[in-house]
Amino acid sequence: MRVRLNRKIMDLKSVWYENCLWLIDQRQLPEKLVFKGLRRETEVAEAINKMVVRGAPAIGVAGAYGVAMAAQKGREKQAAKIIKNARPTAVDLSNCVDKVMDEPDSKSMLAKAHEISNRVVSSCKRIGEFGEKLIKKDIGILTHCNAGALATVDWGTALAPLRIAQRKKKNPFVYVDETRPRLQGALTSWELLNEGIEHRVIVDNARGYFMRKGKIGLVIVGSDRVCVSDGSIANKIGTYEVAVMAKENRIPFYVAAPLTTFDAVSGEGNFKIEERDEGEVLDVKVGKRGFPVKARALNPAFDVTPKKYITGVICEKGIYRPGDLKRALRD
Amino acid sequence: MRVRLNRKIMDLKSVWYENCLWLIDQRQLPEKLVFKGLRRETEVAEAINKMVVRGAPAIGVAGAYGVAMAAQKGREKQAAKIIKNARPTAVDLSNCVDKVMDEPDSKSMLAKAHEISNRVVSSCKRIGEFGEKLIKKDIGILTHCNAGALATVDWGTALAPLRIAQRKKKNPFVYVDETRPRLQGALTSWELLNEGIEHRVIVDNARGYFMRKGKIGLVIVGSDRVCVSDGSIANKIGTYEVAVMAKENRIPFYVAAPLTTFDAVSGEGNFKIEERDEGEVLDVKVGKRGFPVKARALNPAFDVTPKKYITGVICEKGIYRPGDLKRALRD
Repeated sequence: MRVRLNRKIMDLKSVWYENCLWLIDQRQLPEKLVFKGLRRETEVAEAINKMVVRGAPAIGVAGAYGVAMAAQKGREKQAAKIIKNARPTAVDLSNCVDKVMDEPDSKSMLAKAHEISNRVVSSCKRIGEFGEKLIKKDIGILTHCNAGALATVDWGTALAPLRIAQRKKKNPFVYVDETRPRLQGALTSWELLNEGIEHRVIVDNARGYFMRKGKIGLVIVGSDRVCVSDGSIANKIGTYEVAVMAKENRIPFYVAAPLTTFDAVSGEGNFKIEERDEGEVLDVKVGKRGFPVKARALNPAFDVTPKKYITGVICEKGIYRPGDLKRALRD
Repeated sequence: MRVRLNRKIMDLKSVWYENCLWLIDQRQLPEKLVFKGLRRETEVAEAINKMVVRGAPAIGVAGAYGVAMAAQKGREKQAAKIIKNARPTAVDLSNCVDKVMDEPDSKSMLAKAHEISNRVVSSCKRIGEFGEKLIKKDIGILTHCNAGALATVDWGTALAPLRIAQRKKKNPFVYVDETRPRLQGALTSWELLNEGIEHRVIVDNARGYFMRKGKIGLVIVGSDRVCVSDGSIANKIGTYEVAVMAKENRIPFYVAAPLTTFDAVSGEGNFKIEERDEGEVLDVKVGKRGFPVKARALNPAFDVTPKKYITGVICEKGIYRPGDLKRALRD
């Protein structure tokens, strides 16, 4: 991933191994770019749980290295358990930990973790190449949450097609929804600024407005679990709304995910939806910058709901069908 | 509206006239309850534009008093112009200003403003009585933005049925969406806490999750403009998403609004959608309390998107239909 730092452009990964596991601390972005080195499985589990590292493929790779490092001290079993429990919904974490645990010794476990990491990078690049074909010139694209290089290791899932389309001068215009409660839209905006991809931040509430105005021609999101058995996907809260709104407005809705995110067994209702702390919702204040300094936004304050969605209008004269409002004025 | 203040319960209006126009400063809620007295039309226009007072019926009443006060100094024409321009989308403001301007002298203009204010209160109470009949015992109800007493003068539009249902011991459980960018959900939570109505705050992204889980049996929202000609309504950004999600989940979607909010002439596309400052979107920080201290939240981190909404899944092997994912594992 391209990162502009002190006026230089660097090429970084969000997760890598160099004597220990290194991560970009995603909680400090977009304000500060801070790297964290982790050695112990408890540190890795905490980093995953507290979302220092987030994104299904990225936590899968971090978990793989966490177990491989623990194996050097004979602690792989405990490590596998606490790391898999750090976050329950994304399937990559347990998929990747299981793959490392299948290896016979600590050396081959570390080799397997490297292999998983390399495969995530090459898979994301392939996803980008396939997905790029869906992108027409000058199209408006909506993405939700951050399914970028930060969430994977490099390239991203949903953002990989955008990176390649930009390099092919297709000039995509991206609607970045902020993704409350944790505002991962700020991470997406940061990645797109680094890549020079034109975009505007919108509140989650404004997606329908821009869809209905015909501004969005394509939706691409990532996924935390692709259920092979029933064709459903689990992803960041709000994805279901995005998908319904896209269908209602006849906009293609694509999910980008490597095979490490595929769940061959479970379907909806057979895995746990993580419920996080209430403070993530309640502790929010407007008035202090949370998005990159150079980010731009669009902020329509209202939208229009057409008649077909309205059951009734309650006024002081009674309840009227939306096709029958003239009667309310006469009655 | 019932307000708990210094361990006493008081009965307050959000807008009233007593030598000058008095408002609850809604920007300071839920942290502080501050009253503002305004005399000049420029102050009234600014209070409306900066959302010291907000909510379609409340700004209508504030605007009516603003013009009536200006008439005492012969400045009603300038006043009508700047006040009507303070916010363009809600129709109440121009409806109410026009009604006051139709009066022949300053005395009858003030009387008309009083009449408008009284009528809003009685209309909202009637809306509550009609709407309450839609509320079954122990039902889950979603509301968007704040269409409460703060937004009207007293009772509220969408919240009036809830107030009456609570007094009839129907025990409604309210899902209060936070309503980014300005978090008017905090105002709704504050009103519901004062009334003792059980509720949880959710992020806007979580509405679909709770609908799909069957937790929500009814949606009631307010409106800034009810278009008689085409049956559409304009309301806070996000309302369109709420309505589509409700329809998709077969949940009744009701709009509550007094006749002052009705627009007999325009339809969608014939009035202005206000676009506000980018900072409302970009200047937001998590980690500091913005909701009432006693508010509670629900915070599911993921949701599930069923197959029918997914156009395709892009993985490293290509693009697959969601019903055809087994092939991706085999290929």
